[in-house]
Amino acid sequence: MKIDNLLKQVEFIKEIDKIKYIQRKTKLFNSDRHENDAEHSWHLAMMAIVLSEHANEQIDVLKVLKMVLIHDIVEIDAGDIFIYDSVKNHSNTKEELKAAKRIFGMLPTEQAQEFIAIWEEFEEGETNEAKFAKAMDRFEPLLQNTSNNGGTWSEFNVKYESVYDKKKLIKKGSKSIWGFAEELINESVKNGILKK
Amino acid sequence: MKIDNLLKQVEFIKEIDKIKYIQRKTKLFNSDRHENDAEHSWHLAMMAIVLSEHANEQIDVLKVLKMVLIHDIVEIDAGDIFIYDSVKNHSNTKEELKAAKRIFGMLPTEQAQEFIAIWEEFEEGETNEAKFAKAMDRFEPLLQNTSNNGGTWSEFNVKYESVYDKKKLIKKGSKSIWGFAEELINESVKNGILKK
Ligand SMILES: [Ca+2]
Repeated sequence: MKIDNLLKQVEFIKEIDKIKYIQRKTKLFNSDRHENDAEHSWHLAMMAIVLSEHANEQIDVLKVLKMVLIHDIVEIDAGDIFIYDSVKNHSNTKEELKAAKRIFGMLPTEQAQEFIAIWEEFEEGETNEAKFAKAMDRFEPLLQNTSNNGGTWSEFNVKYESVYDKKKLIKKGSKSIWGFAEELINESVKNGILKK
Repeated sequence: MKIDNLLKQVEFIKEIDKIKYIQRKTKLFNSDRHENDAEHSWHLAMMAIVLSEHANEQIDVLKVLKMVLIHDIVEIDAGDIFIYDSVKNHSNTKEELKAAKRIFGMLPTEQAQEFIAIWEEFEEGETNEAKFAKAMDRFEPLLQNTSNNGGTWSEFNVKYESVYDKKKLIKKGSKSIWGFAEELINESVKNGILKK
């Protein structure tokens, strides 16, 4: 039983290596090198640990970590969708659910169910943990773009209104981080790296 | 106070981006591309979550996650030392301690102290959490090398005895994972990808 589980878990561990090849639109800090999903997920995990004191509500940090560590695994099958893509909807496509079922489904049944549930909870964004995890996911590229002279905002001609609209989700997870983020956005407009 | 913390934490979050540039000797699964420290740390975190049921003793998974997520941050200053390097000792050099103090020292005092303590606990490898975290750190490259036709073993002419000697640490964290690992090592000798 335990060894059965282990064999399945090892196959899953090998499979998820593939997220290291999935490139995001955003780039590393002060850099021209694209970030991949594994690096991004690691960074969100570190941010969740370091910033947890700023959460609006009491959060279960372990659950937040699970969310941010697994949230992009579905992209192995479904690919990365750019958050400012106006054609494709960013979140919770059918393709992603299919991917979650296939990839998390490699794990022993109970664990597979737990992972799918955590991924869905993150996507829905309703619980305290999901709100904070999503705040991390919005905050990282904001820090990256401001360090990269506008980054994807300049590259893809994304305007202030769209940025503000996407980033305000941070407030649901942390009012203090949102205060900081809002200031960064306003400064970016002043500095000319984000157009109104 | 809270905003003071946040400013320090954001500087830390930017600083640790640098581990994405630190290349390990090992390569991705079935691949010729080197793994970097951020990807490696993400993978260990996933392994710790997925494999926790195999730990010899009850473990605090959150603590294990903190350990594996931060364990290589010191390499930003100290660099990656190859585990089979016969000249430099792999673990806990003075340089690494200095790095831990500088980098974790960017955080608010209490948090800095917590991170340094967790990093030291990992390095010492005595607690249940550290033993399991170290087991993950030894298990990942074993899986990678066997998927890569010997990987760093072939590349750097590492022999069975050295591999066995380094990998047996897995047993301290998990007897069942060690059982699996030992079999993988023996098979590798049979398949000729690891020389006795
Ligand atoms: Ca290392």
